[in-house]
Amino acid sequence: MIGTLSVVFLLGRASAQTSRDSTKSTAVGGFFTGGNASVSRIPVVPEINCGVAKVSFPPGVRTIWHSHAGGQIIVVVSGTAWYQEKGKPKQVIKQGESVVCPPNVMHWHGATPDGPMTHMVVTPNMDKGGATTGPAVTEKEYKSL
Amino acid sequence: MIGTLSVVFLLGRASAQTSRDSTKSTAVGGFFTGGNASVSRIPVVPEINCGVAKVSFPPGVRTIWHSHAGGQIIVVVSGTAWYQEKGKPKQVIKQGESVVCPPNVMHWHGATPDGPMTHMVVTPNMDKGGATTGPAVTEKEYKSL
Repeated sequence: MIGTLSVVFLLGRASAQTSRDSTKSTAVGGFFTGGNASVSRIPVVPEINCGVAKVSFPPGVRTIWHSHAGGQIIVVVSGTAWYQEKGKPKQVIKQGESVVCPPNVMHWHGATPDGPMTHMVVTPNMDKGGATTGPAVTEKEYKSL
Repeated sequence: MIGTLSVVFLLGRASAQTSRDSTKSTAVGGFFTGGNASVSRIPVVPEINCGVAKVSFPPGVRTIWHSHAGGQIIVVVSGTAWYQEKGKPKQVIKQGESVVCPPNVMHWHGATPDGPMTHMVVTPNMDKGGATTGPAVTEKEYKSL
Protein backbone atom coordinates (compact mmCIF):
# COMPACT_ATOMS: atom_id res chain seq x y z
CA MET A 1 0.00 0.00 0.00
CA ILE A 2 2.99 2.31 0.30
CA GLY A 3 4.11 4.19 -2.76
CA THR A 4 6.16 7.25 -3.56
CA LEU A 5 4.26 10.38 -4.51
CA SER A 6 5.50 13.88 -5.12
CA VAL A 7 2.93 15.73 -3.09
CA VAL A 8 2.62 19.07 -4.80
CA PHE A 9 2.12 21.26 -1.77
CA LEU A 10 5.20 19.90 -0.08
CA LEU A 11 7.48 20.54 -3.01
CA GLY A 12 6.44 23.97 -4.31
CA ARG A 13 9.22 26.40 -5.18
CA ALA A 14 9.13 29.85 -6.72
CA SER A 15 10.70 33.26 -6.37
CA ALA A 16 8.68 35.53 -4.08
CA GLN A 17 8.81 35.52 -0.32
CA THR A 18 5.73 36.06 1.84
CA SER A 19 2.61 34.09 2.60
CA ARG A 20 0.57 36.97 1.24
CA ASP A 21 2.20 36.29 -2.13
CA SER A 22 1.28 32.63 -1.97
CA THR A 23 -0.30 30.76 -4.80
CA LYS A 24 -4.06 30.30 -4.62
CA SER A 25 -5.43 27.60 -2.40
CA THR A 26 -5.80 24.18 -3.91
CA ALA A 27 -7.16 20.89 -2.68
CA VAL A 28 -4.79 17.95 -2.97
CA GLY A 29 -6.89 14.93 -3.93
CA GLY A 30 -6.02 11.63 -2.35
CA PHE A 31 -3.75 13.05 0.33
CA PHE A 32 -6.53 13.71 2.84
CA THR A 33 -9.21 11.65 4.58
CA GLY A 34 -12.57 12.85 5.88
CA GLY A 35 -12.76 15.67 3.32
CA ASN A 36 -10.21 17.94 1.69
CA ALA A 37 -7.83 20.51 3.09
CA SER A 38 -7.01 23.86 1.47
CA VAL A 39 -3.34 24.25 0.60
CA SER A 40 -1.53 27.55 -0.11
CA ARG A 41 2.05 27.09 -1.18
CA ILE A 42 4.45 29.83 -0.07
CA PRO A 43 6.88 30.78 -2.86
CA VAL A 44 10.54 30.26 -1.99
CA VAL A 45 13.89 30.55 -3.73
CA PRO A 46 15.36 27.16 -4.69
CA GLU A 47 18.38 27.74 -2.45
CA ILE A 48 16.19 27.52 0.66
CA ASN A 49 15.84 23.79 -0.11
CA CYS A 50 12.44 23.68 1.66
CA GLY A 51 8.80 23.45 0.79
CA VAL A 52 6.62 25.91 2.74
CA ALA A 53 2.83 25.77 2.78
CA LYS A 54 -0.18 26.88 4.78
CA VAL A 55 -2.77 24.12 5.09
CA SER A 56 -6.30 24.62 6.43
CA PHE A 57 -8.27 21.57 7.57
CA PRO A 58 -12.03 21.51 8.18
CA PRO A 59 -13.11 19.60 11.29
CA GLY A 60 -12.51 15.84 10.97
CA VAL A 61 -10.07 16.14 8.05
CA ARG A 62 -6.57 14.66 8.31
CA THR A 63 -3.76 13.62 6.03
CA ILE A 64 -3.17 10.01 5.10
CA TRP A 65 -0.19 8.25 6.65
CA HIS A 66 3.00 9.59 5.04
CA SER A 67 6.64 10.40 5.65
CA HIS A 68 9.15 12.95 4.35
CA ALA A 69 12.69 12.10 3.27
CA GLY A 70 13.96 15.31 4.88
CA GLY A 71 11.52 15.54 7.80
CA GLN A 72 8.97 18.27 8.49
CA ILE A 73 8.28 21.11 10.93
CA ILE A 74 4.62 21.86 11.64
CA VAL A 75 3.52 25.12 13.28
CA VAL A 76 -0.14 25.42 14.30
CA VAL A 77 -1.37 28.97 13.62
CA SER A 78 -5.07 28.53 14.44
CA GLY A 79 -7.15 25.86 16.11
CA THR A 80 -5.86 22.63 17.59
CA ALA A 81 -4.09 19.84 15.66
CA TRP A 82 -3.83 16.14 16.18
CA TYR A 83 -0.48 14.59 15.22
CA GLN A 84 0.67 10.99 15.43
CA GLU A 85 3.81 9.11 14.54
CA LYS A 86 3.48 5.39 13.74
CA GLY A 87 3.62 3.32 16.91
CA LYS A 88 3.36 6.32 19.25
CA PRO A 89 0.43 7.99 21.04
CA LYS A 90 -1.51 10.76 19.31
CA GLN A 91 -0.39 14.26 20.32
CA VAL A 92 -2.45 17.42 20.72
CA ILE A 93 -0.66 20.43 19.21
CA LYS A 94 -2.19 23.74 20.21
CA GLN A 95 -2.17 27.14 18.49
CA GLY A 96 1.34 28.59 18.62
CA GLU A 97 3.00 25.22 19.23
CA SER A 98 5.13 23.23 16.82
CA VAL A 99 6.10 19.64 16.24
CA VAL A 100 9.14 18.32 14.40
CA CYS A 101 8.75 15.06 12.49
CA PRO A 102 12.11 13.36 11.84
CA PRO A 103 13.00 12.16 8.34
CA ASN A 104 11.32 8.97 7.11
CA VAL A 105 8.94 8.63 10.08
CA MET A 106 5.39 7.69 9.07
CA HIS A 107 2.87 10.11 10.58
CA TRP A 108 -0.39 11.95 10.06
CA HIS A 109 -1.78 15.31 11.12
CA GLY A 110 -5.06 17.13 10.89
CA ALA A 111 -7.93 18.91 12.59
CA THR A 112 -9.82 17.48 15.53
CA PRO A 113 -13.47 16.53 15.00
CA ASP A 114 -14.51 19.64 16.92
CA GLY A 115 -13.08 22.53 14.92
CA PRO A 116 -11.00 23.71 11.95
CA MET A 117 -7.21 23.93 12.16
CA THR A 118 -4.58 25.74 10.09
CA HIS A 119 -0.89 24.97 10.19
CA MET A 120 2.23 26.08 8.38
CA VAL A 121 4.45 23.24 7.24
CA VAL A 122 8.13 23.55 6.46
CA THR A 123 9.52 20.55 4.62
CA PRO A 124 13.32 20.89 4.67
CA ASN A 125 16.12 18.99 2.97
CA MET A 126 14.18 18.61 -0.26
CA ASP A 127 17.38 17.48 -1.93
CA LYS A 128 16.94 14.26 0.06
CA GLY A 129 13.69 13.44 -1.73
CA GLY A 130 9.93 13.90 -1.40
CA ALA A 131 7.07 12.30 0.47
CA THR A 132 6.22 8.62 0.76
CA THR A 133 2.53 7.90 1.19
CA GLY A 134 0.77 5.10 3.05
CA PRO A 135 -2.84 4.16 3.72
CA ALA A 136 -5.63 6.41 4.92
CA VAL A 137 -5.96 7.11 8.63
CA THR A 138 -8.98 5.06 9.67
CA GLU A 139 -11.72 6.40 11.91
CA LYS A 140 -10.45 4.08 14.64
CA GLU A 141 -6.88 5.39 14.31
CA TYR A 142 -8.09 9.00 14.07
CA LYS A 143 -10.20 8.85 17.20
CA SER A 144 -7.92 6.65 19.30
CA LEU A 145 -6.27 8.17 22.35
CA MET B 1 31.06 45.71 11.93
CA ILE B 2 30.06 42.38 10.47
CA GLY B 3 31.28 39.22 12.15
CA THR B 4 30.34 35.57 12.28
CA LEU B 5 28.54 34.38 15.37
CA SER B 6 26.96 31.06 16.14
CA VAL B 7 23.70 32.32 17.56
CA VAL B 8 22.65 29.67 20.01
CA PHE B 9 18.92 29.75 19.44
CA LEU B 10 19.31 29.31 15.73
CA LEU B 11 21.51 26.28 16.00
CA GLY B 12 19.99 24.21 18.82
CA ARG B 13 19.70 20.49 18.28
CA ALA B 14 18.58 17.68 20.55
CA SER B 15 16.47 14.53 20.55
CA ALA B 16 12.85 15.23 21.50
CA GLN B 17 10.16 16.61 19.24
CA THR B 18 7.54 19.09 20.43
CA SER B 19 7.55 22.70 21.49
CA ARG B 20 6.20 21.63 24.84
CA ASP B 21 9.45 19.74 25.36
CA SER B 22 11.48 22.82 24.56
CA THR B 23 14.38 24.01 26.62
CA LYS B 24 13.66 26.83 29.05
CA SER B 25 13.50 30.35 27.72
CA THR B 26 16.74 32.25 27.54
CA ALA B 27 17.68 35.75 26.57
CA VAL B 28 20.35 36.00 23.90
CA GLY B 29 22.51 38.97 24.81
CA GLY B 30 23.74 41.15 21.99
CA PHE B 31 21.42 39.77 19.34
CA PHE B 32 18.52 42.11 20.13
CA THR B 33 17.99 45.88 20.28
CA GLY B 34 15.48 47.77 22.41
CA GLY B 35 15.44 45.08 25.09
CA ASN B 36 15.72 41.30 25.06
CA ALA B 37 13.59 38.60 23.49
CA SER B 38 12.79 35.27 25.13
CA VAL B 39 14.02 32.26 23.16
CA SER B 40 12.81 28.66 23.52
CA ARG B 41 14.71 26.21 21.39
CA ILE B 42 12.69 23.26 20.06
CA PRO B 43 14.66 20.01 20.30
CA VAL B 44 15.23 18.29 16.96
CA VAL B 45 17.09 15.26 15.66
CA PRO B 46 20.36 16.16 13.88
CA GLU B 47 19.08 14.66 10.61
CA ILE B 48 16.47 17.42 10.30
CA ASN B 49 19.38 19.80 9.58
CA CYS B 50 17.37 22.75 10.96
CA GLY B 51 17.27 24.95 14.01
CA VAL B 52 13.76 25.49 15.37
CA ALA B 53 12.92 28.08 18.03
CA LYS B 54 10.05 30.08 19.46
CA VAL B 55 11.02 33.69 20.08
CA SER B 56 8.89 36.19 22.03
CA PHE B 57 9.61 39.91 21.63
CA PRO B 58 8.30 42.62 23.96
CA PRO B 59 7.05 45.76 22.20
CA GLY B 60 9.88 47.69 20.54
CA VAL B 61 12.36 44.81 20.59
CA ARG B 62 13.98 43.60 17.37
CA THR B 63 16.97 41.58 16.27
CA ILE B 64 20.14 43.21 15.00
CA TRP B 65 20.86 43.01 11.28
CA HIS B 66 21.88 39.44 10.44
CA SER B 67 21.78 36.75 7.77
CA HIS B 68 21.66 32.95 7.68
CA ALA B 69 23.83 30.79 5.44
CA GLY B 70 20.88 28.46 4.80
CA GLY B 71 18.04 31.02 4.96
CA GLN B 72 15.17 31.15 7.43
CA ILE B 73 11.39 30.68 7.59
CA ILE B 74 9.53 32.85 10.10
CA VAL B 75 5.95 32.04 11.18
CA VAL B 76 4.16 34.62 13.34
CA VAL B 77 2.05 32.85 15.96
CA SER B 78 0.87 35.86 17.98
CA GLY B 79 0.90 39.60 17.50
CA THR B 80 2.27 41.44 14.48
CA ALA B 81 5.88 41.38 13.27
CA TRP B 82 7.99 43.83 11.37
CA TYR B 83 10.49 42.29 8.94
CA GLN B 84 12.95 43.98 6.60
CA GLU B 85 15.57 42.84 4.14
CA LYS B 86 18.49 45.17 3.44
CA GLY B 87 17.59 47.65 0.71
CA LYS B 88 13.89 46.74 0.68
CA PRO B 89 10.81 48.24 2.37
CA LYS B 90 9.81 47.03 5.83
CA GLN B 91 7.07 44.39 5.77
CA VAL B 92 4.22 43.82 8.22
CA ILE B 93 3.76 40.10 8.97
CA LYS B 94 0.52 39.30 10.75
CA GLN B 95 -0.45 36.42 13.02
CA GLY B 96 -0.68 33.23 10.96
CA GLU B 97 1.49 34.57 8.14
CA SER B 98 5.03 33.57 7.23
CA VAL B 99 8.01 35.08 5.52
CA VAL B 100 10.91 33.25 3.89
CA CYS B 101 14.33 34.92 4.04
CA PRO B 102 16.71 33.61 1.36
CA PRO B 103 20.23 32.47 2.28
CA ASN B 104 22.80 35.20 3.01
CA VAL B 105 20.31 38.10 2.86
CA MET B 106 20.81 40.66 5.65
CA HIS B 107 17.55 41.29 7.50
CA TRP B 108 15.95 42.00 10.87
CA HIS B 109 12.66 41.12 12.52
CA GLY B 110 10.87 41.97 15.71
CA ALA B 111 7.81 43.33 17.45
CA THR B 112 6.16 46.62 16.57
CA PRO B 113 6.31 49.42 19.15
CA ASP B 114 2.65 48.78 19.96
CA GLY B 115 2.55 45.20 21.20
CA PRO B 116 4.40 41.95 21.87
CA MET B 117 5.01 39.40 19.11
CA THR B 118 5.93 35.73 19.09
CA HIS B 119 7.23 33.84 16.08
CA MET B 120 8.54 30.39 15.33
CA VAL B 121 11.74 30.38 13.30
CA VAL B 122 12.97 27.46 11.22
CA THR B 123 16.59 27.82 10.15
CA PRO B 124 17.24 25.15 7.51
CA ASN B 125 20.35 23.93 5.75
CA MET B 126 22.45 24.20 8.88
CA ASP B 127 25.16 22.22 7.12
CA LYS B 128 25.71 25.38 5.06
CA GLY B 129 26.79 27.36 8.13
CA GLY B 130 25.37 29.64 10.82
CA ALA B 131 24.36 33.26 11.19
CA THR B 132 26.37 36.33 10.24
CA THR B 133 25.65 39.38 12.36
CA GLY B 134 25.72 43.05 11.49
CA PRO B 135 25.01 46.29 13.34
CA ALA B 136 22.03 47.10 15.52
CA VAL B 137 18.82 48.28 13.86
CA THR B 138 18.68 51.97 14.65
CA GLU B 139 15.55 53.74 15.83
CA LYS B 140 15.40 55.46 12.44
CA GLU B 141 15.63 52.15 10.55
CA TYR B 142 13.17 50.49 12.94
CA LYS B 143 10.52 53.14 12.58
CA SER B 144 10.96 53.89 8.88
CA LEU B 145 8.18 52.99 6.50
